[in-house]
Amino acid sequence: MERSSGMQNNGGCFSRGCGWIKSLPERSKAKIVECARKIKKLGQDDPRRVNHAVKVGLAITLVSLFYYSEPLYDGFGDSAMWAVLTVVVVFEFSVGATLGRGLNRGLETFLAGTLGFGAHHLAILSGEKGEPILLGLFVFLLATTVTFVRFFPRMKARYDYGLLIFILTFCLISVSGYRDDEVLDMAHKRVSTILIGGLTAVFVCICICPVWAGDDLHNLAATNIEKLGIFLEHFGVEFFRQPGEGESIHKASLQGYKSVLNSKNMEESLVNFARWEPGHGQFKFRHPWKHYLKFGSLTRQCAYRVEALNGYLNSDIKTPPEIQGMIQDSCTKMSSELGKALKELALAIKSMTPPSSASSHLVKSKFFAKNLKFLLSSDLCRGINLLEVVPAVTVTSLLFEVISYAEKIAEAIHELASLAQYENVEQEKPKLPEQGEMHQGANMDVHHHVVTIDQPPPVKPQNGSLSSSTTS
Amino acid sequence: MERSSGMQNNGGCFSRGCGWIKSLPERSKAKIVECARKIKKLGQDDPRRVNHAVKVGLAITLVSLFYYSEPLYDGFGDSAMWAVLTVVVVFEFSVGATLGRGLNRGLETFLAGTLGFGAHHLAILSGEKGEPILLGLFVFLLATTVTFVRFFPRMKARYDYGLLIFILTFCLISVSGYRDDEVLDMAHKRVSTILIGGLTAVFVCICICPVWAGDDLHNLAATNIEKLGIFLEHFGVEFFRQPGEGESIHKASLQGYKSVLNSKNMEESLVNFARWEPGHGQFKFRHPWKHYLKFGSLTRQCAYRVEALNGYLNSDIKTPPEIQGMIQDSCTKMSSELGKALKELALAIKSMTPPSSASSHLVKSKFFAKNLKFLLSSDLCRGINLLEVVPAVTVTSLLFEVISYAEKIAEAIHELASLAQYENVEQEKPKLPEQGEMHQGANMDVHHHVVTIDQPPPVKPQNGSLSSSTTS
Repeated sequence: MERSSGMQNNGGCFSRGCGWIKSLPERSKAKIVECARKIKKLGQDDPRRVNHAVKVGLAITLVSLFYYSEPLYDGFGDSAMWAVLTVVVVFEFSVGATLGRGLNRGLETFLAGTLGFGAHHLAILSGEKGEPILLGLFVFLLATTVTFVRFFPRMKARYDYGLLIFILTFCLISVSGYRDDEVLDMAHKRVSTILIGGLTAVFVCICICPVWAGDDLHNLAATNIEKLGIFLEHFGVEFFRQPGEGESIHKASLQGYKSVLNSKNMEESLVNFARWEPGHGQFKFRHPWKHYLKFGSLTRQCAYRVEALNGYLNSDIKTPPEIQGMIQDSCTKMSSELGKALKELALAIKSMTPPSSASSHLVKSKFFAKNLKFLLSSDLCRGINLLEVVPAVTVTSLLFEVISYAEKIAEAIHELASLAQYENVEQEKPKLPEQGEMHQGANMDVHHHVVTIDQPPPVKPQNGSLSSSTTS
Repeated sequence: MERSSGMQNNGGCFSRGCGWIKSLPERSKAKIVECARKIKKLGQDDPRRVNHAVKVGLAITLVSLFYYSEPLYDGFGDSAMWAVLTVVVVFEFSVGATLGRGLNRGLETFLAGTLGFGAHHLAILSGEKGEPILLGLFVFLLATTVTFVRFFPRMKARYDYGLLIFILTFCLISVSGYRDDEVLDMAHKRVSTILIGGLTAVFVCICICPVWAGDDLHNLAATNIEKLGIFLEHFGVEFFRQPGEGESIHKASLQGYKSVLNSKNMEESLVNFARWEPGHGQFKFRHPWKHYLKFGSLTRQCAYRVEALNGYLNSDIKTPPEIQGMIQDSCTKMSSELGKALKELALAIKSMTPPSSASSHLVKSKFFAKNLKFLLSSDLCRGINLLEVVPAVTVTSLLFEVISYAEKIAEAIHELASLAQYENVEQEKPKLPEQGEMHQGANMDVHHHVVTIDQPPPVKPQNGSLSSSTTS
């Protein structure tokens, strides 16, 4: 009995094994197709990735010419290897990152080379026995000190790679100098090849389809604000939608804002890279890149509130119909106008034009907020069950907060314009109405001209203060 | 007149110049003192930084012995340089990061070396003229492909450094093989010295005051939850504090949670490092490190609500006294119990013990939440001005949300325990009361025993399921 079951087992194993082998080509094919699909998607998501890969291949092939060409090799010998090494480690995705690494590598190699040469000569003076001891002490002290300096946040942000190279070069020059008497010649060859490698990397990076970290940072700031705008534009409708009214059509686009929540690190590294970049396109050299951190911080403050709002989209507690009927219109319009304002602000950043139409949307949004406040304090809202309106009140209150942050973002855009030294900025600052300026009306449908009667329209700019024509 | 003013100007410049030179020693002294203070603070904030710096110095000095010692140098010659280079680039702050880089470097050097050697031989077959062309083609294709592969998020997270080294080694071996006929000998020497360098780095990193990324990740998860707890514990009192009641004593400690908002990147890299680490202390090899991302995500969800709550601390709209008198007690206690629960959860993670007392605080917090809901729906709250209670209602609603996330965090801790294959976990899962289980009472002062009468206390563990004794 046991033996037969054992044989059955064996037979089962065998047939499973056969099946596994037979299905191998099919599964391999499926895996290859899946892999190809992933590669295609990666390339399609950002075609600059393909360019970058080809550029790296090209730069490395260029510097490897040192080995193939007789006259070049005769000049540098084995040190030609350092050119290849430099290209591989220096070539980064964006121009700023490549320039930062290249400058760090070049400068620190030179400094550490000089210092290493000095250490080598000092060690020689101490005699044959003292030389290795003194060299070891120098290496230990310098490596320890510089490694500690790398912990300083400011050093880490901009010069981390340079400090690493500093330790590396110092050790290599001072220590290998112990064996190689022609240390000056070696240092000279090494520095030259590193320079050549670095220059090749920078040249290829800038001249063939350059990717500017500054452009990426600028677009990131705009896209993040736009994502919040898209959420808010549809939020009101989604919040008041009854369960029976069919599925939401905006569900996917509503969740786009999630990436804004964790954008801080990316933003900071882009700022660090952008600061290495020369003037390009719409941006002058010394464009106020650090100011984008302010946008980022304000945008994330908005995003935290939006994340809290998102939690109320599928709330269990439904607002009672009489209250919903009263506040739905104002609340939906406030949210939608706020969304439009943010989208306009994003557009203003992207196109580098003053955010004039955004301010009209902000004015409308603030008007509906005022309207809602009036409704909430009116007698119509007395005598209701407070628990039933908790989600509606919370959502309204959070939207008020987002409005105040949207105003701060608009201000930050104007600050950017003045920091970048554009003219006629002050007069274009959007004149937002004060709390008391707006009239209070219940459930009014406000069109643009109603608002403009109540207060002057934003001053039309005479020449685009942030327009690309003045910046380039 | 003009001349005299020019002379006065010159005199002014001169005296300013003199003053500047005179004050130079003082200012230098002040700068040095400031710098020393910063260095001291950096070391005191995390004394492991000083250890790390000394360890790096030691490891580099150790491998530079290759140059000083005659028999070692005779064996490897100039390739000894690669040992120094490897230590400098492989030695990282934590064991996981060092192991990850070391393994990446070792493995990819070996793979790329083999492939480079193969490419070199293939190129030789094509004759003297074809060799450089074929080699150039190989280098271009491989560099392009591997650079593109580095864009895959999964590759970037764990093998980015290895892929860089792969390109580097392949190019160096295959290209320098064009000149150096003893390519196998060179590859062998280079791989050996890299292995020696990598092993030295790993040895020093693990054996002298090791810094485990896993420990850091574990502590980060606990500390982040604790920071939210500290905020919530004092939030209620701060929110209802009248402007005349003196300054807050908790202002600084209340803002500690801000670092939680942007903790995602740090968490992800610590998880990647921790996964390279062998078992150590309380953690087995293959500890479910990825599960900490779940903690992190839930903690940040809490933190976003806490950030929104923080915005209401200095709200302009003050809750009317009659409403405040009614809800203040419950709201303050709900927040404070919630804070205590989070602090207990943090302690449970830190000490790896089951979060039993946390669940009693959570139960109390939920009781006060129920209490508040009852109050809000009671007749006492009818007839009030809705606008005046907007901040209070919003704060209450956000606190409800935080409670539900705190419950999820408690669940995640139990999941971690079962994933780490501890025994008797199921029976310790905190039995939180259902919505209907709790009695509704207005403004009751609830002590621990009242709750425990209402529902059974959490089952006391028979042996610490997450305790260190079972894990080590």
